[in-house]
Amino acid sequence: MSLRFTVSLAALGAATAVLSAASTPAKADEGMWTFDNFPIQTVNDKYGTHIDQAWLDRVRNSAVRINGCSASLVSGEGLILTNWHCVVGCAQELSSAEHDYVKNGFLTATREEEKECPGQTAEILTDIIDVTDRVLGAGQGLEGAAFVQARGAETTKIEDENCTDKETQTCQVISFYRGGRYALYKFRKYEDVRLVFAPENQAAFFGGDPDNFNFPRYALDTGFLRIYEDGKPVATPTHLTWNPNAPKEGDVTFVAGNPGSTSRLLTMSQLERLRDQVNPITLIQASELRGRLQEYATTSEEAKRVVFDPLFGLENSFKVYYGQEGALTDPDFMGKKREQEAELRARVAADPAIAARIGDPWGDLEKVQASARDLYLPYRQLEASAGGGSDLYRYAKTIVRAAKERAKPLAERRAGYTDAALAQQARRLAEVTPIDQGLEEIYLTHWMLKTREYLTVDNAEVKAMLGKDAPADIADRLVQGTKLGDPAVRAQMFAMTPEQLAASGDPMIAFVLANDNAAQAVRAQWDSAVNGPTAKAGEKIAQARFAVYGTNLYPDATFSLRLSYGAVEGWTYRGVTVPPFTYMGGLYERATGAEPFNAAQAFLDNESKVNKDTVYDFVSTNDIIGGNSGSPVINAKGEVIGAAFDGNIHSLGGSFGYDGALNRTVTVSTAAITEALRNIYHQPRLLAELGVR
Amino acid sequence: MSLRFTVSLAALGAATAVLSAASTPAKADEGMWTFDNFPIQTVNDKYGTHIDQAWLDRVRNSAVRINGCSASLVSGEGLILTNWHCVVGCAQELSSAEHDYVKNGFLTATREEEKECPGQTAEILTDIIDVTDRVLGAGQGLEGAAFVQARGAETTKIEDENCTDKETQTCQVISFYRGGRYALYKFRKYEDVRLVFAPENQAAFFGGDPDNFNFPRYALDTGFLRIYEDGKPVATPTHLTWNPNAPKEGDVTFVAGNPGSTSRLLTMSQLERLRDQVNPITLIQASELRGRLQEYATTSEEAKRVVFDPLFGLENSFKVYYGQEGALTDPDFMGKKREQEAELRARVAADPAIAARIGDPWGDLEKVQASARDLYLPYRQLEASAGGGSDLYRYAKTIVRAAKERAKPLAERRAGYTDAALAQQARRLAEVTPIDQGLEEIYLTHWMLKTREYLTVDNAEVKAMLGKDAPADIADRLVQGTKLGDPAVRAQMFAMTPEQLAASGDPMIAFVLANDNAAQAVRAQWDSAVNGPTAKAGEKIAQARFAVYGTNLYPDATFSLRLSYGAVEGWTYRGVTVPPFTYMGGLYERATGAEPFNAAQAFLDNESKVNKDTVYDFVSTNDIIGGNSGSPVINAKGEVIGAAFDGNIHSLGGSFGYDGALNRTVTVSTAAITEALRNIYHQPRLLAELGVR
Repeated sequence: MSLRFTVSLAALGAATAVLSAASTPAKADEGMWTFDNFPIQTVNDKYGTHIDQAWLDRVRNSAVRINGCSASLVSGEGLILTNWHCVVGCAQELSSAEHDYVKNGFLTATREEEKECPGQTAEILTDIIDVTDRVLGAGQGLEGAAFVQARGAETTKIEDENCTDKETQTCQVISFYRGGRYALYKFRKYEDVRLVFAPENQAAFFGGDPDNFNFPRYALDTGFLRIYEDGKPVATPTHLTWNPNAPKEGDVTFVAGNPGSTSRLLTMSQLERLRDQVNPITLIQASELRGRLQEYATTSEEAKRVVFDPLFGLENSFKVYYGQEGALTDPDFMGKKREQEAELRARVAADPAIAARIGDPWGDLEKVQASARDLYLPYRQLEASAGGGSDLYRYAKTIVRAAKERAKPLAERRAGYTDAALAQQARRLAEVTPIDQGLEEIYLTHWMLKTREYLTVDNAEVKAMLGKDAPADIADRLVQGTKLGDPAVRAQMFAMTPEQLAASGDPMIAFVLANDNAAQAVRAQWDSAVNGPTAKAGEKIAQARFAVYGTNLYPDATFSLRLSYGAVEGWTYRGVTVPPFTYMGGLYERATGAEPFNAAQAFLDNESKVNKDTVYDFVSTNDIIGGNSGSPVINAKGEVIGAAFDGNIHSLGGSFGYDGALNRTVTVSTAAITEALRNIYHQPRLLAELGVR
Repeated sequence: MSLRFTVSLAALGAATAVLSAASTPAKADEGMWTFDNFPIQTVNDKYGTHIDQAWLDRVRNSAVRINGCSASLVSGEGLILTNWHCVVGCAQELSSAEHDYVKNGFLTATREEEKECPGQTAEILTDIIDVTDRVLGAGQGLEGAAFVQARGAETTKIEDENCTDKETQTCQVISFYRGGRYALYKFRKYEDVRLVFAPENQAAFFGGDPDNFNFPRYALDTGFLRIYEDGKPVATPTHLTWNPNAPKEGDVTFVAGNPGSTSRLLTMSQLERLRDQVNPITLIQASELRGRLQEYATTSEEAKRVVFDPLFGLENSFKVYYGQEGALTDPDFMGKKREQEAELRARVAADPAIAARIGDPWGDLEKVQASARDLYLPYRQLEASAGGGSDLYRYAKTIVRAAKERAKPLAERRAGYTDAALAQQARRLAEVTPIDQGLEEIYLTHWMLKTREYLTVDNAEVKAMLGKDAPADIADRLVQGTKLGDPAVRAQMFAMTPEQLAASGDPMIAFVLANDNAAQAVRAQWDSAVNGPTAKAGEKIAQARFAVYGTNLYPDATFSLRLSYGAVEGWTYRGVTVPPFTYMGGLYERATGAEPFNAAQAFLDNESKVNKDTVYDFVSTNDIIGGNSGSPVINAKGEVIGAAFDGNIHSLGGSFGYDGALNRTVTVSTAAITEALRNIYHQPRLLAELGVR
């Protein structure tokens, strides 16, 4: 999930005062709708469009889910449009001290120059199958960890039954309405995804972190990928038509993509724990790591290069959490949420039949939060965030856990460890990705220091983990000593038994082995005291909502395909009106020459050729969130007119509620992409494929 | 203020549930009492002591205030006992790449080896004069900025009238009860303060940041200074007698020192703004800077050396704020505060005469918080925290503001800029302190980056400050170009007019000059919209408290001399009982050999000589807070038995309330100091002076 949310931090507070309620039928242009419950009539009535099932099917079949982002097919030969910031990780991994594709861009003159992105997948949704009864049935009569295990096992079973070929299929059971409904989403999957085009970082990410979430905005946040099979581009007759013309103010816009996560259906007690515990700890730890990465970047040009993408990701996350916290500490916003909850509870209480069926899941969740407050820090430090971002640690943990589960009979394995799933893990591990030892040591040191700080030095797990050594020394020993940077070694170790791993002598493997029981224990506690009862209560609340408000509701985002609708429209805040468009000429006016406000070299070199009146970025009222990055923005005719890449400042509270007057999606227009391909990056091959002269 | 509060972060939450109310007469051992309102009878009744005015006078005359800390006279020749962490700044400033007195300790064999601490003062309170009527009278009929200016001018006038010789006298008008009372505190001041003894950092700060606020604790957090005049030690016939024996469990203990700041009398709306805005921003920014300093420390041995004290200070502050936030997000704690406020308001409302006199200051403060929320970020970034900790920036700001005020007639100058005060500033500027350019650039870069981030890149003041340059480039240009690292240059520039400064060509001076109007404007806004109305409302609330509860109350801490009482006592939390003492042998058991748990070299070298049964550190129920560091801990006879240096984990919420069952003061015993001077550091000269064989 990485639709970037930049935060103009001074302006929080009142930004989210007016919000409508996800718990009641949606108003304005609110909603991240599933394709099987899209409000066709509402949209056609409001915007005079002629959306029908065929329109929806074509859009759905053109929508692509890629790692953490969204995308779309835009030619018959497997060409995929997404954001630059969704392919920059690939560009970074393909780069070296000699070739910096992040800084200089990645341009291809022929198909042969297109390069495979390590670990990149592309998934196109083919089927949606309701599996609510099977999932709910699996947990019947069970509690805590047993409940979580039974649910997980059933989920994995459904997935395995429906996807027998994990190399070309993905099956995923997805929860909707926080447990109100479960559906199997089945995808056609492609594992050979190649980078076709990425502009220079200064073109795509002009303004850097300071401009992130700013609008007016001047960013060519676009990139192209292509799916291959058997070494050839995949034929994709169903795709979106490229419209190189910018929309006009008021034009209807649709966004098809995978919003990552919203929390609009959480109860007050859940929101309060986010506000008081999860978000503060996350912001504080992220900030310290941010300082480390910033300082590390000053030590050499190479350090600066390798830090680029990790730092971008970290700063992006920081803003998301900071923005969430702004909403959660806004008394008006929280007052409104409180009112909504009170209304639902009152309506449940008013109907004896419903009340008897629902019970008091709000009270249950309050009790869960008390347990969660106690367990959160050990769960976070020892399990959920263990390794602090180190790839080498992650490899070791994957290998150790696979070995342990493989040693068990199938029926006793934890969910997600079927043979098919293990084979998939093996393929992932074999991918070649560069490792920066300096960065790895920073991640591990930071994580161990924070674990000691937050769990205290006298905590038994901390003592076992650190022994008599300093965290930085341990990190150094592990990173310098492990052989897991080599994909061949990883493949070899993935096949080992726990005993063989213990005898391997690899220090990172030994470290993970030594601490894994404690980590699994805290995960089991969390499942038992938090995940299990939360799932049960969430289902009850979803049923309460269906009973009171009917089923014409959209669910919270779960990184599954959604469609949102809206229109090109600016906004007015505290008397200042922000128009919906920027133009390419504006980039040259905003550029100062100093990072991150230096214009990209190709933009400078070709300034005289650029049509400065071209619409660059634009905003619309669509309701989206992180994970929607790269989503095609589509007009009434179903043509693609841009790639969504950000939200405006006011959409920060979008995790918890949508405000139609202020929340905006930020999109880079196909008009600007076309202009850049033609007059800045000179890509006639791509233009021809897109059907543009 | 730097009594260190370490936080065992996992254990917050319930830690502060039981608190008594500063707004009602104090119970248990609560209270940071002024010397003119000490509850003699209560203490004598409870502890069977014979405290009388003579006892109080002798303690008061032996108490010393030093920069940000507390201390006491312990010999007739000006010898001062305080904490190591109160003299480590001096040790750091006296150090160089060749002589590292922080790491190796600072030991003296003769008086001649005692070295003057740059900028160090020592102040002994001589008079307390009530000036409430004068101060309150000065603001009569005025509002906002005019009110603040009139109050400030009267305060400065009182101070100047009473202290004509600023080299040997300090006069300070101090607010008590948040404006309920004002008193002039007059001190005998010494400006030649020399370092006599500091142990190795690993002896004093064993366990480092992880153990900070931990107990059981094994830290020799002690240091000695000496006051000089005319090149000779000052004769100090009044001083505390050194008792080299540890107290027993249950023994009464007094702590005389300068608690820096508490917020026990703040209203709910004030606490909520702290919780939602001030503390989060502070924690987040501090964490990022912390990450930078940690990473900078890894770049070289010299960088590690210079970062030591700044990083210690930063981590200490982080814990204080984090601990505060733990209390402010604890629903039980805040519920109790809310009840207390409701009770006071109800009792005011119940008496028409009082109600008419008091009005609704709680409502007024609610409105003030709305303004403060809007103004806080610009005020913080452009004025209150401007420069981000850079000494060179601070010098430039001092010089520029002095020049501007000096150019005005006396009556129009801002408070604090009388000729006497300016002369004092000049003396401070002339002190020689080392400057690390790398550290200076980190501070400035971090500050400018955060200013741009929080005020946004399009803010007019940010644009004016940065122009077309990147923050890191500006920082580099300022630090490399300025001559203000040279005390002679500072002295010369301090005498210049604004015009001469503008013509000087110094880039740091030019930078401050260019941005100073904006900074002063935001300060004026803050004074007018926040400080002024807060002072007025605070006075009303103090009067309400006096009217309802009488005057047998202690005021919030304001870094003025206070006396607290209590007893040596451990505590029990969640079924675990922590005994009140540690012993020197425990240090050797806790030591791992890895930083920060490596024992000091002198401790290792002399292990066989040390009496391991010596009481090392102990806890007592005294109510103290940051600023109390170095305070003498005194027995019933008035003898010194230790130096307070920390609070336990539960005292974290002490800013807002005291819990007698859990809050503890942590003290290094005179028994341990004596043992260390004798058998580890071999200081017969000091032992003889302390009257110990």
